[in-house]
Amino acid sequence: MPPTHANAPGSEDRPEDRPADRVESETDLVQTYLAPLAAGSAGAFGLRDDAALISPEPGTDLVVSSDPIIAGVHFFIDDAPEDVAWKALAVNASDMAAKGARPLAYILTLALPDAPTRAWMTRFSDGLRSAQESFGCRLIGGDTDRTPGPLSIGITIFGAVPAGKFVPRLGAAAGDHVFVTGTIGDAALGLAVRRDASAFEGVLSDDERAFVLGRYLRPKPRLALAETLRNHASAALDISDGLMKDLARLAGPSGISLGLGSVPMSPAVGAALAHDAAVAKTVLTGGDDYELLVAVPPAAIADFKIGAERAGIAISRLGVLEAGRKFEIRDQHGTLIDGQQLGYDHFSR
Amino acid sequence: MPPTHANAPGSEDRPEDRPADRVESETDLVQTYLAPLAAGSAGAFGLRDDAALISPEPGTDLVVSSDPIIAGVHFFIDDAPEDVAWKALAVNASDMAAKGARPLAYILTLALPDAPTRAWMTRFSDGLRSAQESFGCRLIGGDTDRTPGPLSIGITIFGAVPAGKFVPRLGAAAGDHVFVTGTIGDAALGLAVRRDASAFEGVLSDDERAFVLGRYLRPKPRLALAETLRNHASAALDISDGLMKDLARLAGPSGISLGLGSVPMSPAVGAALAHDAAVAKTVLTGGDDYELLVAVPPAAIADFKIGAERAGIAISRLGVLEAGRKFEIRDQHGTLIDGQQLGYDHFSR
Repeated sequence: MPPTHANAPGSEDRPEDRPADRVESETDLVQTYLAPLAAGSAGAFGLRDDAALISPEPGTDLVVSSDPIIAGVHFFIDDAPEDVAWKALAVNASDMAAKGARPLAYILTLALPDAPTRAWMTRFSDGLRSAQESFGCRLIGGDTDRTPGPLSIGITIFGAVPAGKFVPRLGAAAGDHVFVTGTIGDAALGLAVRRDASAFEGVLSDDERAFVLGRYLRPKPRLALAETLRNHASAALDISDGLMKDLARLAGPSGISLGLGSVPMSPAVGAALAHDAAVAKTVLTGGDDYELLVAVPPAAIADFKIGAERAGIAISRLGVLEAGRKFEIRDQHGTLIDGQQLGYDHFSR
Repeated sequence: MPPTHANAPGSEDRPEDRPADRVESETDLVQTYLAPLAAGSAGAFGLRDDAALISPEPGTDLVVSSDPIIAGVHFFIDDAPEDVAWKALAVNASDMAAKGARPLAYILTLALPDAPTRAWMTRFSDGLRSAQESFGCRLIGGDTDRTPGPLSIGITIFGAVPAGKFVPRLGAAAGDHVFVTGTIGDAALGLAVRRDASAFEGVLSDDERAFVLGRYLRPKPRLALAETLRNHASAALDISDGLMKDLARLAGPSGISLGLGSVPMSPAVGAALAHDAAVAKTVLTGGDDYELLVAVPPAAIADFKIGAERAGIAISRLGVLEAGRKFEIRDQHGTLIDGQQLGYDHFSR
């Protein structure tokens, strides 16, 4: 679809005004930098069709999710292009992990403020390649547009689960135990370091600051846990909007009493918290960790733990879902934390 | 995923600053205005999960396409919200029609510059409802974000075709006849009227100006032709970037000699062209018609025509694809038209 200003006088920049290091056309952009990411995928038609084709294996359901990322909102405009590309695919692959699905393919819609340079497209497509090879999926289609707004990267991802084995967000029952993968709060501290390179200087070592920054810039979807979730979890979701907010979503009508001491933290986050108790709020409400929150019925706990160990993914127990209990969070001294600000909402507070 | 500025001082607007007529939160926006559009769709989980589930019927392939629309690029920021919603879904449903697919479901990603008013969301969701009821599909998932850029509406649509019956863009062979549905150029004239309400005054009647404006604002995907395409077309695509550009895509390595007199035009476009020969270029290169270009092998032409007639869709023959011929367009006097500017490209000219 052409832009509404396509025929407006003066809106067409002339080829001779275009720096030589920028892509020449949509075809150039798509065929030079993106089509190689679709190689070997029959339903992608070399990115030369208007649509892509998915032929699901018999006995599988298709899982679909779409989380765009926008410059100035979900990443910084001067983040490395390969990191931006990685994050764009990783946040979507993380949803597949939480649903017990195996990523198959994705569609990319790029809205670019200007014709990108060849250097930027090379680095961006390199980042996508690393991500898709890590997550086991391929590009199958998409769209590119020029926008008066910020760079925006839309990905819709498709995954497969055996029919009927989708892991829902709302399947948890009172009595289920709640587990979380990995460590929490790293990405929120990494965001602080990304925003101010001197953040936590003197509190964290250079290695620790590099670690939390890496956790923010390059989230790692917990895809290795997908099979265990399918077989043993009653509900799961990934932590994108903060532990408290996503835990409340998992709990549904049940409540849980959570002590800060149960929240798994990396040495870096532990050190920051020891230095400043206010870091607790960052840990509880910061987003971007892309760890998984999992509800497991008591009878399945032993098998769930074995599955996680086989997958090589650390899990920690946060507590038990209880009917008729409030959602309570206590700090390291046992004092109730104000739960009003549970996490980020784009349209409130 | 929270925005990178979530914890920046001063970035949180206070509830008391929020006008009462705006949505209160993402949950309010999604559950009040969007979840009703997902009613009855089992795999949508009431828009309360991170992903949606599609269980394809055995023997079907899934067709996927994603075309976002951006304010100031693909629509005007002050277009009626119900028209914007209609267009967002229609341009995607049009891809399904061109591939011979039946729309099943779609995912919506909304990037909004501010918390929308309840009035805007009501009208926007009404437009989506009209469109999805017309096209036979339902909302199954999505995402909402706040953006520093313009309103952007991303839709990924899913359709079904019987296995192996996808209609490709690149399937045409020399000797195939090329047909087009409906009339061409209406939307491009409608865009001119949308941009300047006095455009074509004295040339077109008020009814004709309203007609072309409606064709621009409310494209009608030719879904009724999908079955006929599956059975009788060798290739098809919808005309989104202009007749010339999309015809060149369909022709592939073949050429075609096209006379302007073969291009079907509404009385409105005919009148505008009779008044100003320069309208020819608008007709040939203007986009947004969302008619279908179809290649049909000679042996299938009779059945194709019967199918189109049964579907109630007017078709016109543009010409025959020929090997070793150039792509030529001649105006009403038989003079070759400069084919350099074949249609819109976001990143060149």
